Amino acid sequence: MKVLVLGGDGFCGWPTALHLSSKGHEIVIADNFSRRRIDQDLGVQSLTPIRSLRRRISRWHSLTGREIAFHHLDVAEEYDKLLALLRAEKPDAVIHFAEQRAAPFSMKSARHKSYTMRNNVCGTEHILSAIVETGADIHLVHLGTMGVYGYGGTDAALPDGYLPVFVPTAGGDLKRQEIVFPADPGSVYHLTKVLDHCTFQYYAKNDRIRITDLHQGIVWGTQTPETGLHPDLINRFDYDGDYGTVLNRFLVQSAIGYPLTVHGTGGQTRAFIHISDTVRCIELALDNPPERGDRVRVANQIAETRQVRELAMMIAERTGCDIAYVDNPRNEAAENALCVRNDVLRGFGWDPVTLEDGLLAEVEEIALIHRGRCDVNKIPAMSTWTTAQSPGLPAFLSEAAE
Amino acid sequence: MKVLVLGGDGFCGWPTALHLSSKGHEIVIADNFSRRRIDQDLGVQSLTPIRSLRRRISRWHSLTGREIAFHHLDVAEEYDKLLALLRAEKPDAVIHFAEQRAAPFSMKSARHKSYTMRNNVCGTEHILSAIVETGADIHLVHLGTMGVYGYGGTDAALPDGYLPVFVPTAGGDLKRQEIVFPADPGSVYHLTKVLDHCTFQYYAKNDRIRITDLHQGIVWGTQTPETGLHPDLINRFDYDGDYGTVLNRFLVQSAIGYPLTVHGTGGQTRAFIHISDTVRCIELALDNPPERGDRVRVANQIAETRQVRELAMMIAERTGCDIAYVDNPRNEAAENALCVRNDVLRGFGWDPVTLEDGLLAEVEEIALIHRGRCDVNKIPAMSTWTTAQSPGLPAFLSEAAE
Repeated sequence: MKVLVLGGDGFCGWPTALHLSSKGHEIVIADNFSRRRIDQDLGVQSLTPIRSLRRRISRWHSLTGREIAFHHLDVAEEYDKLLALLRAEKPDAVIHFAEQRAAPFSMKSARHKSYTMRNNVCGTEHILSAIVETGADIHLVHLGTMGVYGYGGTDAALPDGYLPVFVPTAGGDLKRQEIVFPADPGSVYHLTKVLDHCTFQYYAKNDRIRITDLHQGIVWGTQTPETGLHPDLINRFDYDGDYGTVLNRFLVQSAIGYPLTVHGTGGQTRAFIHISDTVRCIELALDNPPERGDRVRVANQIAETRQVRELAMMIAERTGCDIAYVDNPRNEAAENALCVRNDVLRGFGWDPVTLEDGLLAEVEEIALIHRGRCDVNKIPAMSTWTTAQSPGLPAFLSEAAE
Repeated sequence: MKVLVLGGDGFCGWPTALHLSSKGHEIVIADNFSRRRIDQDLGVQSLTPIRSLRRRISRWHSLTGREIAFHHLDVAEEYDKLLALLRAEKPDAVIHFAEQRAAPFSMKSARHKSYTMRNNVCGTEHILSAIVETGADIHLVHLGTMGVYGYGGTDAALPDGYLPVFVPTAGGDLKRQEIVFPADPGSVYHLTKVLDHCTFQYYAKNDRIRITDLHQGIVWGTQTPETGLHPDLINRFDYDGDYGTVLNRFLVQSAIGYPLTVHGTGGQTRAFIHISDTVRCIELALDNPPERGDRVRVANQIAETRQVRELAMMIAERTGCDIAYVDNPRNEAAENALCVRNDVLRGFGWDPVTLEDGLLAEVEEIALIHRGRCDVNKIPAMSTWTTAQSPGLPAFLSEAAE
């Protein structure tokens, strides 16, 4: 299958491109390197020394004999170029990772909110509109987030996208109806994924585009079997307050002897998935497109749910590091229950990796090897969700600074 | 009250600005004149000879002694200018009309889809983000559309925004819950209003912004008591295939002896409101802001529902003109039932004007007076909803052309 990977230089995009290439798919990457530019803007770098995309692709070729094509493209700003690319490459499927994907980054300022909205929402619409304009039957696979549903605490398990409800009729009876699971996003970033999903629903209906929206949990880990083949293929590893995901942040903090920064009580329950499962799930989504004319296929791409406090304690126990409970910069419930179904992907044969499966040690090792590249000043999360919250260093750091 | 009217030069914005000014509110208009520019791009003009905004405002001042301030502003592209305007003018409320508002225009091409998305969705986010950045308690009133719900045929009446449903719990019982009425937009334009609404829900929750979203029906008529005071104040009247709304189009067609172009069977049932009620409803929304921290207030801003065929027959009967059933360029149900509640606005004291109330004759008169300005070539609706539909002239025109 020929697959266009939009955002194929990123944290999920790069390992996905390699995984699909290793499976014999013909891969074309498009990227505008916004993620690398944002690192420069934030003054941070990946903990792992990632190579240029040119070098990555060239190394992959020398190791495996497989070609990966590359096009420089800004999906949100260069519609004509995107359309020309689709017409020239004629992909069977497009995987859409070309979005700003950090909630804290999206909340840093009005400029960051605006950038995230425009990049994500206009980019998604461009892709759909361009697919329509080609007239080709292209399957679009999008990486969404579990965060579209919020974490307000639900009674029953979150289904894969659609919720059966009973609606009162004019006569007073209750009629069963399936609705898109109601959204309740917790940041501008999460909001854009909600808007994406509404846009998918419209294009699936009006233009009969085949679309799979994968509502992913929080990714942990960094390497997949393919990125581990050679140092030139290494995947990025973010530990900073904007892009670092919670479990990876804890592992770096532990590696450098920095207290694990738990926001609030750590009572937040979230869904998790290892990066090697991300790429497997995307392969499964590609192999199982919805029928043309079907509604959007939604799948919860999550392996397990865990409480943040529980994760911190698990790592503190392994490594003996401290835990620091800091003010929560986010506007979210202090504690929540979360139960999520992943029937769709399991139905395609997925057997998820969990935290028990020994990959924690692998991530710890990478964090240890590269800890010299860590800038401790970039660890605190400095974006706040509302103007009523005061951004600032965690108390244990502020005290040290006094 | 000081009110900033974004898009205050447009079809709904201008009469709203005058109405609120006549009621003693201090009015500031911001506009980028995109609607006038689109007229130029499409090669059409308002049936009524609208004046420049400068002349409009100056005439209003000479007639009433009331000042209206004006700022040239592109809400979607000039965030900093928008923020500076809010800080300088310190409005109590912002009324948001600054959107591309024609469904056929939004479907003309990928470029039109992209423009509509970016203008509407990014513009709305800018307004909310700027309100947050000012820190002021500003009530945002937005003109949405009934079309966010689609016209798939509903059993019970459409409520004002929120639908009580019963959701199965883990234990198997049903739990009552209110959800945002599920969206089902019928064009990219309608989609943008859905995305706006999701954005409102988020900002009402995260930043406690007071927001009223008015889901308006199809507007008919052109004049309000204020725009009728002097020819310099006249409101725009669109009759073209992109911006003309169905009833106004029929009235112009009748005035020039052109058959009434009914799309498909005319079995579409839609919601309608007269422009003089639009301005009254917005005043009522302003006078009744939600509490800070409340969810978004949603009100169906509609006076009555009518079937398109029924409207055509009503006008044909009054004037003796013909009806031409033409291919429907839209992707929509041929026939639908529609029942809509307007409890919120009625609860604020609104007593709607309906088609029976004699205003049809007033619109007919305006159409007759200005019929010399009508370009018949601009009447057919040429935008199609899918590539499978072939755009083209209605059969009765194509035959005449042969």
